[in-house]
Amino acid sequence: MIYNKFMEVYFMKKALELAKISYENFDVPVGCVIVKDKKIIGKGYNQKEKNKNPLCHAEINAINSACKNLNSYHLEDCDMYVTLEPCLMCVGAIINARIKNLYFGAYNYRFGAVLSHVELLKDGGFNHKTKYQGGILKEESARLLNSFFEKLRNSSR
Amino acid sequence: MIYNKFMEVYFMKKALELAKISYENFDVPVGCVIVKDKKIIGKGYNQKEKNKNPLCHAEINAINSACKNLNSYHLEDCDMYVTLEPCLMCVGAIINARIKNLYFGAYNYRFGAVLSHVELLKDGGFNHKTKYQGGILKEESARLLNSFFEKLRNSSR
Repeated sequence: MIYNKFMEVYFMKKALELAKISYENFDVPVGCVIVKDKKIIGKGYNQKEKNKNPLCHAEINAINSACKNLNSYHLEDCDMYVTLEPCLMCVGAIINARIKNLYFGAYNYRFGAVLSHVELLKDGGFNHKTKYQGGILKEESARLLNSFFEKLRNSSR
Repeated sequence: MIYNKFMEVYFMKKALELAKISYENFDVPVGCVIVKDKKIIGKGYNQKEKNKNPLCHAEINAINSACKNLNSYHLEDCDMYVTLEPCLMCVGAIINARIKNLYFGAYNYRFGAVLSHVELLKDGGFNHKTKYQGGILKEESARLLNSFFEKLRNSSR
């Protein structure tokens, strides 16, 4: 069993706090924490616009941070909490980093690569299998995303 | 048509030179260049072991380098030359960066995400479509990889 409601809500709230930094920086608000032994050992938020780099997704930044902290390229006993369903690149990064459990918030119906658009963690036949659970604090995450895109539309009028 | 044999061989040789740096660093030898208007604007080689980071694939490092050089997060008029068929993460990164054409060398029968293991560039329904051509200087690339793994086996005896 990978579902523990109290812990999930606690760490997803931490990820949402990070998403708000993206929001303030005019980046699509997505935040991510990586947890080992109930402690946060990696943090990231989307910085695509800020860094002018399409790879600076919250998950990638969090994996980079966790690997640096642990001085290790495998995160086998670590769980990831991210406010939005990961894209193709991030699912690949999650497999490469050997994340144990993935918890995500809102579903990404257009580009989500866990469940929504393609299902790559389900039965991908890759060298590592990450368990996953979606929909944690999905309303809060979706609300932040919707507010961001509304702000963006208003500012471009 | 995306096939121009002279240019492909020229830039794939440049990618192979970078792969040899990985080899010397005890990293799986994969090299990558990104080309715009026939000029190399991004370079990368696999640095997973060196940086203790599972995301430091040649393609990721090359995209980071190209975005920095161009000060842009879109590489729409750029082509990538990489000595090994990209993995899932790197195919996702190629789509996110909007690479125009992908040329790769050796096929990665276990984890290649272009043709060999999964076919994500074929008809993925993502927001960008990258054309691709595999097998360029595949013997040279495979020879370098085989030599690396042979060295690794011998050193662990």
